[in-house]
Amino acid sequence: MEIDLTKEVIRAENKNVVIINQTKLPHKLEFLTLKNCKETAQAIKNMNLRGAGTVGVASGYAMAQAFSELKSKEKILEAKEFIENTRPTAQNLFYATNLVYKTAIDETNSEKIAWDTADSILASDIEATSIMGKLGAELIEDNYSILTHCNAGKLAIQGYGSALAPIYYAHEQKKNCFVYVDETRPRLQGARLTAWELAQENIDHAIIVDNAAGYYFQKGKIDIVFVGADRIAGNGDVANKIGTYEKAVLAKENDVPFYVVAPQSTIDTKTKSGSDIIIEHRSQDEVKNINSNLIANEKSKAFNPAFDITPAKYITGIITENGNYKPDNLYNNLCES
Amino acid sequence: MEIDLTKEVIRAENKNVVIINQTKLPHKLEFLTLKNCKETAQAIKNMNLRGAGTVGVASGYAMAQAFSELKSKEKILEAKEFIENTRPTAQNLFYATNLVYKTAIDETNSEKIAWDTADSILASDIEATSIMGKLGAELIEDNYSILTHCNAGKLAIQGYGSALAPIYYAHEQKKNCFVYVDETRPRLQGARLTAWELAQENIDHAIIVDNAAGYYFQKGKIDIVFVGADRIAGNGDVANKIGTYEKAVLAKENDVPFYVVAPQSTIDTKTKSGSDIIIEHRSQDEVKNINSNLIANEKSKAFNPAFDITPAKYITGIITENGNYKPDNLYNNLCES
Repeated sequence: MEIDLTKEVIRAENKNVVIINQTKLPHKLEFLTLKNCKETAQAIKNMNLRGAGTVGVASGYAMAQAFSELKSKEKILEAKEFIENTRPTAQNLFYATNLVYKTAIDETNSEKIAWDTADSILASDIEATSIMGKLGAELIEDNYSILTHCNAGKLAIQGYGSALAPIYYAHEQKKNCFVYVDETRPRLQGARLTAWELAQENIDHAIIVDNAAGYYFQKGKIDIVFVGADRIAGNGDVANKIGTYEKAVLAKENDVPFYVVAPQSTIDTKTKSGSDIIIEHRSQDEVKNINSNLIANEKSKAFNPAFDITPAKYITGIITENGNYKPDNLYNNLCES
Repeated sequence: MEIDLTKEVIRAENKNVVIINQTKLPHKLEFLTLKNCKETAQAIKNMNLRGAGTVGVASGYAMAQAFSELKSKEKILEAKEFIENTRPTAQNLFYATNLVYKTAIDETNSEKIAWDTADSILASDIEATSIMGKLGAELIEDNYSILTHCNAGKLAIQGYGSALAPIYYAHEQKKNCFVYVDETRPRLQGARLTAWELAQENIDHAIIVDNAAGYYFQKGKIDIVFVGADRIAGNGDVANKIGTYEKAVLAKENDVPFYVVAPQSTIDTKTKSGSDIIIEHRSQDEVKNINSNLIANEKSKAFNPAFDITPAKYITGIITENGNYKPDNLYNNLCES
């Protein structure tokens, strides 16, 4: 392994934010140094970094950079809005910008507090992934085959990842397991990032096109599904990468347990149900081109919703650092905890 | 429109088979002249032509070429086996090779009879697509949005296509309709071929990644689904392009009617159920590369099943040139007819 992925996906260094440029993976391991709030926000928007946790940490650091660069509350609020407009579906982003802003804004040493708060978001992610990994690994039996969608690994949330954390733990526990990796069109986070991560750890896996998951469900080849989440509504509905809903329906139809793994900060109790979540629609170029090569009929348009909503009824459990919840009890459990 | 797609996808000319090279679409309209049985079989295998009907016609012509080139029954049988090994899931391929072989082999003017029989397969496809189009168009109301998967259009079966035939007819009847085109990974027949065909006819459409169909089902945006078939078992189970099963499950879950459109020759009553159908697994390169560009982690393997089985219970109706059948009555209806 060239680098320690549990530590080097995103970090702060002298008021810069240093990240792995995920758009270059798996072909090239390149680091980017983001020197100010605007550069960091732009990197979020361009998806040089992505994944719910990593986006959250980056937006926390972008806020801290704003506190370093800007002096007036008004300008800092403008910066906050600028950051929040980069990826409107990501709960962790809003969680981070609000936490840094509220904790720091009325303090005399607001700059230091902003940076400390951003650091704390990173630290709490690392701890959360460790607990989620242990909880999820309890569900993995020896010789299990696991399906995952998109990348909810170490690149997506610093530490052990979210959806991949149970797999990393099971692997450390010497359980034999095999991972079906949905390639995850249009941006191929599965084929590029999850496959790369699993290869780094020598975890046996195969990439499949998103169309093929149903085939393996039907054949009884998939024992359990783990996915991440970008936002979880109070009723347990989950917004995650486009295609997650399809896999959840197929899992239920084939009696395969379907788990969402995400830190508590992903849960947005202010949003009552999935239908209230804003879905980001991205450029049609992501569908029609791969690496700037046209792969579709040029004169046709394309639609590109980036996320979908998986209703709670398809979800077996939501694993956070606080426990493994039944999604339909999510709200009650959260209020009790 | 540059060419008449209802006539020029595949045709015989002086014992050659002239086809549109579908691997070059949509970027380039190129014709290939296949001069002998081996070249035609190779073009089927390489998917220079594809689609159940077109594969059937090509394999019929390949058999006719074998009758022209080879004199002994033994050699002709060898050629038949060679042709049949190109695409093992395609029922029309076996239908065509058997029909040409059995009709011609014991005749004195076997060569002419072989070519006439191959011509008749093409003619009967053209007629079948016309009837299927009319039957299917009855199901399309004004302002309907339609989902289709892969390419079951004019490129796939000469004439009006199979799954697209109802759409072409509805369009001719001045019904306003919109088509969601699954891009259909790994070979992108939707993004490349279906989108190109629909653009030729000015039918409003948008390409979506295969992951996004569920999103539009859930939003109530899809009124009806039409897909083709590569083989239909006696119990109404349908083998079609990988991903079809996923869309069928999603359609049922969202109460959207799901129709299979295919000529009678696709029905294989000797195969009792879908589980008896051999599924072709193709090279992992199709998943990991697009146009020879690596799009996945290089060191990871990929699995590439080319078809899946949609059980009859998910299918609202199977439309052939003989009628619109309930799939669970398929066998009885066929025996009666």
